[in-house]
Amino acid sequence: MISTETLRHLKHAGTATLTTQLFKRGLRNVFIQGIGRMSAAKENMVGEAFTLRYIPAREDLDLVSAFDNPEHPQRKAVETVPPGQVLVMDCRRETRAASGGNILLTRLKVRGVAGVVTDGCLRDSEAIGLMDFPVYGAGGSAPLNLVCHHAVDMNLPIACGGVAVFPGDILVGDGEGVVVIPQHLAEELARDAHEQETLEEFVLGEIAGGRALPGTYPPNADTLARYREWRQRRSDD
Amino acid sequence: MISTETLRHLKHAGTATLTTQLFKRGLRNVFIQGIGRMSAAKENMVGEAFTLRYIPAREDLDLVSAFDNPEHPQRKAVETVPPGQVLVMDCRRETRAASGGNILLTRLKVRGVAGVVTDGCLRDSEAIGLMDFPVYGAGGSAPLNLVCHHAVDMNLPIACGGVAVFPGDILVGDGEGVVVIPQHLAEELARDAHEQETLEEFVLGEIAGGRALPGTYPPNADTLARYREWRQRRSDD
Amino acid sequence: MISTETLRHLKHAGTATLTTQLFKRGLRNVFIQGIGRMSAAKENMVGEAFTLRYIPAREDLDLVSAFDNPEHPQRKAVETVPPGQVLVMDCRRETRAASGGNILLTRLKVRGVAGVVTDGCLRDSEAIGLMDFPVYGAGGSAPLNLVCHHAVDMNLPIACGGVAVFPGDILVGDGEGVVVIPQHLAEELARDAHEQETLEEFVLGEIAGGRALPGTYPPNADTLARYREWRQRRSDD
Amino acid sequence: MISTETLRHLKHAGTATLTTQLFKRGLRNVFIQGIGRMSAAKENMVGEAFTLRYIPAREDLDLVSAFDNPEHPQRKAVETVPPGQVLVMDCRRETRAASGGNILLTRLKVRGVAGVVTDGCLRDSEAIGLMDFPVYGAGGSAPLNLVCHHAVDMNLPIACGGVAVFPGDILVGDGEGVVVIPQHLAEELARDAHEQETLEEFVLGEIAGGRALPGTYPPNADTLARYREWRQRRSDD
Amino acid sequence: MISTETLRHLKHAGTATLTTQLFKRGLRNVFIQGIGRMSAAKENMVGEAFTLRYIPAREDLDLVSAFDNPEHPQRKAVETVPPGQVLVMDCRRETRAASGGNILLTRLKVRGVAGVVTDGCLRDSEAIGLMDFPVYGAGGSAPLNLVCHHAVDMNLPIACGGVAVFPGDILVGDGEGVVVIPQHLAEELARDAHEQETLEEFVLGEIAGGRALPGTYPPNADTLARYREWRQRRSDD
Amino acid sequence: MISTETLRHLKHAGTATLTTQLFKRGLRNVFIQGIGRMSAAKENMVGEAFTLRYIPAREDLDLVSAFDNPEHPQRKAVETVPPGQVLVMDCRRETRAASGGNILLTRLKVRGVAGVVTDGCLRDSEAIGLMDFPVYGAGGSAPLNLVCHHAVDMNLPIACGGVAVFPGDILVGDGEGVVVIPQHLAEELARDAHEQETLEEFVLGEIAGGRALPGTYPPNADTLARYREWRQRRSDD
Repeated sequence: MISTETLRHLKHAGTATLTTQLFKRGLRNVFIQGIGRMSAAKENMVGEAFTLRYIPAREDLDLVSAFDNPEHPQRKAVETVPPGQVLVMDCRRETRAASGGNILLTRLKVRGVAGVVTDGCLRDSEAIGLMDFPVYGAGGSAPLNLVCHHAVDMNLPIACGGVAVFPGDILVGDGEGVVVIPQHLAEELARDAHEQETLEEFVLGEIAGGRALPGTYPPNADTLARYREWRQRRSDD
Repeated sequence: MISTETLRHLKHAGTATLTTQLFKRGLRNVFIQGIGRMSAAKENMVGEAFTLRYIPAREDLDLVSAFDNPEHPQRKAVETVPPGQVLVMDCRRETRAASGGNILLTRLKVRGVAGVVTDGCLRDSEAIGLMDFPVYGAGGSAPLNLVCHHAVDMNLPIACGGVAVFPGDILVGDGEGVVVIPQHLAEELARDAHEQETLEEFVLGEIAGGRALPGTYPPNADTLARYREWRQRRSDD
Repeated sequence: MISTETLRHLKHAGTATLTTQLFKRGLRNVFIQGIGRMSAAKENMVGEAFTLRYIPAREDLDLVSAFDNPEHPQRKAVETVPPGQVLVMDCRRETRAASGGNILLTRLKVRGVAGVVTDGCLRDSEAIGLMDFPVYGAGGSAPLNLVCHHAVDMNLPIACGGVAVFPGDILVGDGEGVVVIPQHLAEELARDAHEQETLEEFVLGEIAGGRALPGTYPPNADTLARYREWRQRRSDD
Repeated sequence: MISTETLRHLKHAGTATLTTQLFKRGLRNVFIQGIGRMSAAKENMVGEAFTLRYIPAREDLDLVSAFDNPEHPQRKAVETVPPGQVLVMDCRRETRAASGGNILLTRLKVRGVAGVVTDGCLRDSEAIGLMDFPVYGAGGSAPLNLVCHHAVDMNLPIACGGVAVFPGDILVGDGEGVVVIPQHLAEELARDAHEQETLEEFVLGEIAGGRALPGTYPPNADTLARYREWRQRRSDD
Repeated sequence: MISTETLRHLKHAGTATLTTQLFKRGLRNVFIQGIGRMSAAKENMVGEAFTLRYIPAREDLDLVSAFDNPEHPQRKAVETVPPGQVLVMDCRRETRAASGGNILLTRLKVRGVAGVVTDGCLRDSEAIGLMDFPVYGAGGSAPLNLVCHHAVDMNLPIACGGVAVFPGDILVGDGEGVVVIPQHLAEELARDAHEQETLEEFVLGEIAGGRALPGTYPPNADTLARYREWRQRRSDD
Repeated sequence: MISTETLRHLKHAGTATLTTQLFKRGLRNVFIQGIGRMSAAKENMVGEAFTLRYIPAREDLDLVSAFDNPEHPQRKAVETVPPGQVLVMDCRRETRAASGGNILLTRLKVRGVAGVVTDGCLRDSEAIGLMDFPVYGAGGSAPLNLVCHHAVDMNLPIACGGVAVFPGDILVGDGEGVVVIPQHLAEELARDAHEQETLEEFVLGEIAGGRALPGTYPPNADTLARYREWRQRRSDD
């Protein structure tokens, strides 16, 4: 479980910062490729991954009647993902059809789920564009998922946008995209990301004020001294 | 010819709904891939397909002087497509150059054409972005069509975005994209899409109000009974 | 060096017009592919190319400590590109990581650089989206450049988005993208583009007013006569 | 279980014929895309699918020491797939690294496994090219699987080359590639494929002898009469 | 019509030479991309293009019964292409299914057709691999054409592998691939290609014998003098 | 400089083994993607990298007359690469044209160069297929390099098939492809690769003889003991 402080830090950490922190720990392939934020969510998405896996559709299995089965994994997953977690779908980066739409996303929002990530597309994308709920995907596509996806199981490790996602990994999404954080690293990452962002806020101010990169970014001892002062001043306010 | 009622229904039907209706009739590959709405049109585009076909350019044929020929198929098509129809271009999904621009689109709008669809790019995309006229394509690209396209003939069956388009097919475009409907299916599809969307409007309300998916989506007998009541009430207003 | 008049013309020339002028001179491959404007710049970007080249990262060389070297080519380039020029980066169209971010772009803006072009991605894309500074790239991507890029040298001829860019080439960017103009052609191109756009402004008015394409676009003698009148009238105002 | 007769028929059925038979039953997406036979096997591969699934590697998990774990799913799968079955791997069509090599393939051959199919690459491809054992893949690639694959589980439904593969599906491979047959269809498909190939053998003889397509392919009543005679004669021999 | 001498020269001209000759005349895009020789033909393929065009399949039209129609364009084309010409198919570079197979190719061979070119795949590729008949395509693929192709018309200008092919263009294929020659250029191209190849045969001998590139390739006056001597000697033999 | 022993070991090391050794040292991206051996070379290619860089062609610069310039970088590189080194070309993985052909390759062979690697194509591929000289590329393509390549400089760090190649890196090629080894690692890599291959030869024998993977691959203490015996025996022979 993520602590409240970790959660708070991650709510304000950028994916740029978090990928840098993961890079420093030897993890290079952590940013889900080929997707973007499709909704009007303003805040970061933060939550544990709950996964749903699709394989290619088979014409005799993937008929509209498939949804009459209450155990259909897509529908089941929507009802099962715990509040506060993120539903992550493996669509093999296939963009010719949707992996879900407005009604399922509304249900997920009502249930208190933290957000949705798919490396496929979503339908009803105009309505999604207005939702205040974090939704990430490869874009809008009208055809229903049965055209090329067969929902097969949930909460197993999956691939999403070229990245491994294990159930329980922490997903953080901002306006740039979604980063996948192994759960055991979340706490220290949140803390170090907060540190890094505070420093970079200072550095950006220095650069905007006219300082050159050398000595400022990365900061030398002199810059770090000024940074500490600035930080002290700020916490004094 | 499409009836006025069919036209009215299609003006308000989403491409998501229409692709589902086509899927129920065994047609899976009906949504033009790789394109989006590039203009400020607010309403659905609806109209019969009038096609224009490009093949790769040949350097000795595709010079600027090609347009001096009043029979040049691109220019001819722009003047020939009947009002109320949609000009659909086969650009082999080639995005390195435009398949048209602002002046041609303005002419098409003035002529009362219902819209434009290309699986290539368009130039003057900033101006297009402000037009109140349905324009769908793969994005903006400045180079003129002669760089990689040779306009060859019009109103033959074509490929557009991976989908077969026969002259006379009904094209419907919304904010998500464009669906291709075989003409003989348009009427029943319009009617069934209207039914489906009314039901889904109800279902979405139920889900937004807190109901779970099972029994609601797809609806069971109980949900359908409530739906009929809701519908009755609504038509009573 | 570009003259002030050339600069002024290019500030108001569209990339569509410029690519047509280059096409007339036998240059077909001049529009940088796969990128778009990522910032809130409203004006055209115009400036000479100053290049930066990346090759694939090597894990033992491309560690965070690489930036401690004040001669690191990426950082060096940011401090070296002369005011008024455009920094152009060759990222091999690789979009899995960033080729720069907010702090570097801010430094470039402060230094009076004319703009930035990369055929890779940029991080901090939300902040970039708000900058009044011309920034062109393949989209947002959070991971830092070291994940897949090794900055290697500057101001050599490079590939950018499938186009050759020689140091000193004139780059012009509008809302559609970026065109690369060989320096020796810039002056005549600026002049001819201005002519073409004036004519097309007139033609667009004619078309919007209801005239058909034949005789108007391209213009015949009659249309050209009306054009000259219109132009005369306008300059009389 | 497949009957001996079914097995015998499938040993001599071409994938072209089998995909036609599946198409007649409404199954269009049954041929594994992007792979070919990499070994010197001369006979058809026939067997039930036993699956192995990879997701993208994670740098902290996928070290060489991973193989010290006797439960590592790749190694486990090699020892578990029953003789007479086919090991099928889901590598997300990723070709930058291998999904196995010479030693594992030798073990599989020794164990009496019917063949190997991967939509990724294999290493030691020169040695594989000489093996008299059915091996299908996307080509040779030297880097070991840990570079981009994390073996995660076995005998679940998977995607392979864009096709759904369920454990127990019947895989048939010839020199053209591999077709996936739902188990319940295998028997009738084997029988009908045998019929179709006998007829096509006759038709090919007719065409080679100079007959035109109309009436011969597809055969009309007259051709079918000659076919039945030919067949009778042949079975009399 | 091509003269006998032109035909003879083209029978012995390499596609490398021919593309160079076309480049000298300003034609850069003349080599069909993404295909190779799939058969055991040893000689060059030379002949006029006779085209067949496919668009994407539509599930309700493209059933096996489509071939009962004797006017089906694919079958019709096979019976119509004149002896000595080349059947060229536009498959939109789609490789998920075949555009023909063994029986059709055998019929074409029997009819004296000069060869077959497709930018899609072919089925029965093992049998094709043994045919002494020029067949060019993107590889083997078992599924029949109806899975993704709808044959629509013949002998119109088409795209094939990214190149424009007009009926009557001269196609030349060797072991490297296929070049498309506008008919009016065939004669002079054949002659100049013969000249170029004779010179390059000499140059290759010089280089193999130890001469350096400068002065030899391209040849200077001295090399050309030796070349003329060598040529004289050879014709004296 | 590589020692004779290192050279000898690398002459017999497979790229599979070498990529594993590099992986153990943290280098994952070392195998040139998208290329294969195009010639009839039987032995490993081993040598230091000498690089040649292309950018996209520009129509006014890249005319046939470009080769009249004795300083043209492609021709210059062919005459400059030292005997025993490997010429490596950065073609941006562009396969629409050649990066060289038969005459240049013959010159390189005569000059004693160790081999050629390009991530583009080569022309005259039939002749190349018969050469006893190591040539690696993305396949055959007839059009000359000027169609899309502008040779720009030599012996700078480049990208080749997605991998960084620095001048002086050691390239080793076998029938599977080409691995890039940082020079300072070559010696220890050669030694360790030799060790690994000897062990794997033993392991393969064990597996072929019927042993299971666990305990054999990777080897446990018992297997290692047998290995040492086997090795002793072998060196006694």
